[in-house]
Amino acid sequence: MKGFAMKKIGETGWVEKEIPACGPLDAIVKPLAVAICTSDIHTIAGAIGDRKDMILGHEVCGEIHEVGSLVKDFKKGDRVLVTAITPDWSTVEAQAGYSMHSGGMLNGWKFSNVKDGVFSEYFHVNDADGNLALLPEGMDPIDACMISDMVPTGFHGAELADIQYGDTVLVIGIGPVGLMGVAGAALRGASRIIAVGTRPKCVEVAKIYGANEFISYKNGPIDEQVLKMTNGKGVDKVIIAGGGVETFSEAVKSLKAGGKIGNVNYLGEGDNVLIPRLEWGVGMGHKAIFGGLMPGGRLRAEKLGSLVASGRLNVRHLITHVYEGWDQLPEAVKIMGEKPADLIKPVVRIQK
Amino acid sequence: MKGFAMKKIGETGWVEKEIPACGPLDAIVKPLAVAICTSDIHTIAGAIGDRKDMILGHEVCGEIHEVGSLVKDFKKGDRVLVTAITPDWSTVEAQAGYSMHSGGMLNGWKFSNVKDGVFSEYFHVNDADGNLALLPEGMDPIDACMISDMVPTGFHGAELADIQYGDTVLVIGIGPVGLMGVAGAALRGASRIIAVGTRPKCVEVAKIYGANEFISYKNGPIDEQVLKMTNGKGVDKVIIAGGGVETFSEAVKSLKAGGKIGNVNYLGEGDNVLIPRLEWGVGMGHKAIFGGLMPGGRLRAEKLGSLVASGRLNVRHLITHVYEGWDQLPEAVKIMGEKPADLIKPVVRIQK
Amino acid sequence: MKGFAMKKIGETGWVEKEIPACGPLDAIVKPLAVAICTSDIHTIAGAIGDRKDMILGHEVCGEIHEVGSLVKDFKKGDRVLVTAITPDWSTVEAQAGYSMHSGGMLNGWKFSNVKDGVFSEYFHVNDADGNLALLPEGMDPIDACMISDMVPTGFHGAELADIQYGDTVLVIGIGPVGLMGVAGAALRGASRIIAVGTRPKCVEVAKIYGANEFISYKNGPIDEQVLKMTNGKGVDKVIIAGGGVETFSEAVKSLKAGGKIGNVNYLGEGDNVLIPRLEWGVGMGHKAIFGGLMPGGRLRAEKLGSLVASGRLNVRHLITHVYEGWDQLPEAVKIMGEKPADLIKPVVRIQK
Amino acid sequence: MKGFAMKKIGETGWVEKEIPACGPLDAIVKPLAVAICTSDIHTIAGAIGDRKDMILGHEVCGEIHEVGSLVKDFKKGDRVLVTAITPDWSTVEAQAGYSMHSGGMLNGWKFSNVKDGVFSEYFHVNDADGNLALLPEGMDPIDACMISDMVPTGFHGAELADIQYGDTVLVIGIGPVGLMGVAGAALRGASRIIAVGTRPKCVEVAKIYGANEFISYKNGPIDEQVLKMTNGKGVDKVIIAGGGVETFSEAVKSLKAGGKIGNVNYLGEGDNVLIPRLEWGVGMGHKAIFGGLMPGGRLRAEKLGSLVASGRLNVRHLITHVYEGWDQLPEAVKIMGEKPADLIKPVVRIQK
Repeated sequence: MKGFAMKKIGETGWVEKEIPACGPLDAIVKPLAVAICTSDIHTIAGAIGDRKDMILGHEVCGEIHEVGSLVKDFKKGDRVLVTAITPDWSTVEAQAGYSMHSGGMLNGWKFSNVKDGVFSEYFHVNDADGNLALLPEGMDPIDACMISDMVPTGFHGAELADIQYGDTVLVIGIGPVGLMGVAGAALRGASRIIAVGTRPKCVEVAKIYGANEFISYKNGPIDEQVLKMTNGKGVDKVIIAGGGVETFSEAVKSLKAGGKIGNVNYLGEGDNVLIPRLEWGVGMGHKAIFGGLMPGGRLRAEKLGSLVASGRLNVRHLITHVYEGWDQLPEAVKIMGEKPADLIKPVVRIQK
Repeated sequence: MKGFAMKKIGETGWVEKEIPACGPLDAIVKPLAVAICTSDIHTIAGAIGDRKDMILGHEVCGEIHEVGSLVKDFKKGDRVLVTAITPDWSTVEAQAGYSMHSGGMLNGWKFSNVKDGVFSEYFHVNDADGNLALLPEGMDPIDACMISDMVPTGFHGAELADIQYGDTVLVIGIGPVGLMGVAGAALRGASRIIAVGTRPKCVEVAKIYGANEFISYKNGPIDEQVLKMTNGKGVDKVIIAGGGVETFSEAVKSLKAGGKIGNVNYLGEGDNVLIPRLEWGVGMGHKAIFGGLMPGGRLRAEKLGSLVASGRLNVRHLITHVYEGWDQLPEAVKIMGEKPADLIKPVVRIQK
Repeated sequence: MKGFAMKKIGETGWVEKEIPACGPLDAIVKPLAVAICTSDIHTIAGAIGDRKDMILGHEVCGEIHEVGSLVKDFKKGDRVLVTAITPDWSTVEAQAGYSMHSGGMLNGWKFSNVKDGVFSEYFHVNDADGNLALLPEGMDPIDACMISDMVPTGFHGAELADIQYGDTVLVIGIGPVGLMGVAGAALRGASRIIAVGTRPKCVEVAKIYGANEFISYKNGPIDEQVLKMTNGKGVDKVIIAGGGVETFSEAVKSLKAGGKIGNVNYLGEGDNVLIPRLEWGVGMGHKAIFGGLMPGGRLRAEKLGSLVASGRLNVRHLITHVYEGWDQLPEAVKIMGEKPADLIKPVVRIQK
Repeated sequence: MKGFAMKKIGETGWVEKEIPACGPLDAIVKPLAVAICTSDIHTIAGAIGDRKDMILGHEVCGEIHEVGSLVKDFKKGDRVLVTAITPDWSTVEAQAGYSMHSGGMLNGWKFSNVKDGVFSEYFHVNDADGNLALLPEGMDPIDACMISDMVPTGFHGAELADIQYGDTVLVIGIGPVGLMGVAGAALRGASRIIAVGTRPKCVEVAKIYGANEFISYKNGPIDEQVLKMTNGKGVDKVIIAGGGVETFSEAVKSLKAGGKIGNVNYLGEGDNVLIPRLEWGVGMGHKAIFGGLMPGGRLRAEKLGSLVASGRLNVRHLITHVYEGWDQLPEAVKIMGEKPADLIKPVVRIQK
């Protein structure tokens, strides 16, 4: 089979590999569509270290090609949702409620990290019963790709920040994950959603998903703008979906005592995340700081899939660029790296 | 009346003042016993800025001298527990569950901060119905003083860290608050309590309260020792009751993915609390960071008072130095500043 | 002043009374608009026992006529939201998080229960700082009346049932509270909302608020219909906003193991609520049963008020009948008792 | 191999069977010790229907005889804890946090229900990595048997009832599960534990585990006694570990508004669990009702095992009768059925 791989740091291209072997609990799946993630670009650039001929990609939906002898709930030909994080469900970490850290911190992340990813004719899914979900009837595969990572990650930001009815919420970053943070906040009952970002396309889509006020990084520190907009009170909750280690400082300063921060942004640089001592209440302000990798697996895919299938969440606004067929995949990866003004997510339809 | 005050930064002494006026919701209380807190020493040294002739102290139990016209549940002569934090219960912050921040971050702290404290013949309590509790029958007033701050603060560390049955818990700092963190962890079902501290008296008492392993700062970074003791796995939870802004770095490194940190330590110096990016899972490790001022008020005092009254929690191990009468108060304050090897808490009995 | 009262069981009419006295913490308020609740009809019929000349009503918004000497945040002339439940915030029950039971079970409910209600030229509010909120700018008073009881009660059903992203939710009863249960479920991320009810007007509005499937009591037991619609799996959560003690039996049978029931329906008859032993998992099915009176007070009013003010929740669909002036109040009460097919809520506008 | 079986309803005896086959994820284990549960007696009497030659027992610890090819963390010869409930961890129910209902309500219960139990020379464990834990060094196998069911079930009662520092807790029933409910309440910080029961041996042991007041069924309804003991206020929480469907009525009447009931008692008879309408606050009293099967699996066994191994929980007080070898197993089963006055738990040591 062919796959689109990171050949080494900074270099991509097609590779030819054997179809992965299917263990007794596993499935081998053929993509119906794949989407490109900023993480793929980071990976190519070396964010997780060097890899040789590792197939890229973790956003996908597909059709089952083969299942292992112990798989009970799926069979060849089933069309399925696949989450980017595919935990080992019997581990103590999963039993503790942190399946994304099964076997060690972040170890639920397997695709294009510790094994080949999904940008290939066939890919391997561990624990098929635990990590696949049937594609809801009528769902377009290109929409389904948003359920792999964008929806669960953005919505996890809203879960970590524990949005409640009537909250004022600050969402920092309105790339695709931040946009799903906005949608997730609105779908948990936030009243006022202040989004930080300036790209016109993203602002337009953020409004559709529920943001009703906007802040630009360019107009000074976020917290100064937030405090002005809230009569000095600050916000109830913050979702962080962009920025770096220093962003937490602005988040803490923007937050009320008793508030919560939910980070779902990958922090690629810096020794320390900075929590400002004074505004954190000299250690006693009850400003809780959460940060976590998205929960994956079957139940999560079923739940979020049903939100999309029911029409409550329209993910199509995220998908600005649709490509057709494997041949166009390199172009889709390339454009994700370039991030033109009108881009949110590029998706490649492989099979109707 | 006379009171023992901070005359200015670095200087203490007796002052003579009017008995405070009693508003309709308030009570005026006469101490039965008072205890000295490290915070009093910090205050004298200038931690909260300069104050002129401000009466010190926030750990106390007393007898009611007068109640306001709207007070329903207490009357002159009642012997009462008083918490160091006395919230305004009608505020939106209290309604949100964060009474210690009623009216603004940390504003539940009034004694010896925004008004005179309790080291005087009479002191003022706002919202008597909400902030006093009857002294449990038979409880010695010097024990009762521990319920003002030491027990609720230390136990709040265990609450913030969300200790569960069988957890392995690291308690950083075994001064009186840390010791109550140890007791609080044991009383929520921790299996393994690793305490960080070296003073022999504190180690002895920590063992009584439930610590079963010890670490010394002097033997290298805490996290290195913790990882060695836990086969590289780390602990489930951390209670921070000592150290500074850099302590969080060791706490995060000592913690499992999915773990929780509960800080109840006042952070007096440093621009930023440092959260190590990599060990915090590049933002995604689900290592939750909590820090909060103790909850005060009547219900809290009743609940913790009942733990002491029932014999489940013996606070007497904290009380290493007992003084008699107002005359000895300056000596008690002095010894708290000096911290001799055998000191944990000095208490002054005012009235039998 | 004049007020519209329950003269005795079964009889209503205008009465003339003194304007209520304003205690130091209280406010006296003049209605801008009032709404009629089914509870008013129950009260007239004797549900809470006999009352003599007790002024009715608990759904209102108003303008402050007078405030007590200790009130800090409000003044004469302020236009305010008022919740039906007005807790005593300093009580231990409020400190425990159950303000609606401050002073005893259900004792947060004062209007038209233990004192006169709001259907009068002036009415009394205890703890003004804790129980009033400013009317959001631009909000129509007739909309504001929905924030007294309908929104907080229906939304509390969704809170008690702990709706999560993607849940399948059964809402039993689609009167005004049930409709707000539907809206509350949608605003916490439910995917599939199955509503039980048949009145065409209510069905029409339930669709607007997010119900996407309907069940009629007339087509057999609810649980049989639900199990058929869910391939025998049952629903994740149930909100009960109608029916009687036997409704819980159908709710439990409709629910998955691990599911939750949130009841906000007043149960007027029957000795016992019936929980079917077998379908409740012989005591071990983790089907949690919650039932609770709405939370009231200032924060709640501010939060829910902001949801309406921001346009996220349009309460106008509930208001089917608008009357003008005190003269039309008896007609509004009468129609609530008759419940014609096109009625959801009658509201009386008193003052522009 | 031989096993001690329910031959049919009401009849037990030894049977000869093949050693169970070991699937790729499974383990075959040889008992080191087994304990008899009241459930075994109920099963023999027909509680779960008829069974033919089904081997009994679900409380055990053992030595691994064989592991499947996919088992990673255990090997032949390992000495292990085994929980009575052995979930399928990849199911959606386990992913939702309700592993005991994996595959359907109560379906985590497999031993002596849907397959042979543990009273035999060899027994089968599904998902060895997920459902076994290493026997802590130095732990006596007869103590280890208490971790299969008694500790996790009793402690789950305390978890469901959500015991907090200083709570007043009513524990109904002080058989072995109720005794662990008492211990679990004490280990989460209850101040006052009122136990319902009269057998002198159980009362004696309940005191050791932390009960400080006692009620007898014989002195009138529980709730009347509780209200008298609490000045009419009622208790904060109730753990139900005995009685029947009518016990919930007394529990609800004993409980404060805002209180919680945690049931871990198997309800064998009656159509409906009875919740008294009025004392349940006419549906609005916030008296939450939980009931659930114990959580099983590896993490649970490790956590509770560590509590016993650390000496924080001494389970030996439960073990009143120790038998030696398979030959004495029938006698142990017999005595559990007879329940003499001095019996709490009979355990059979199979191998040193």
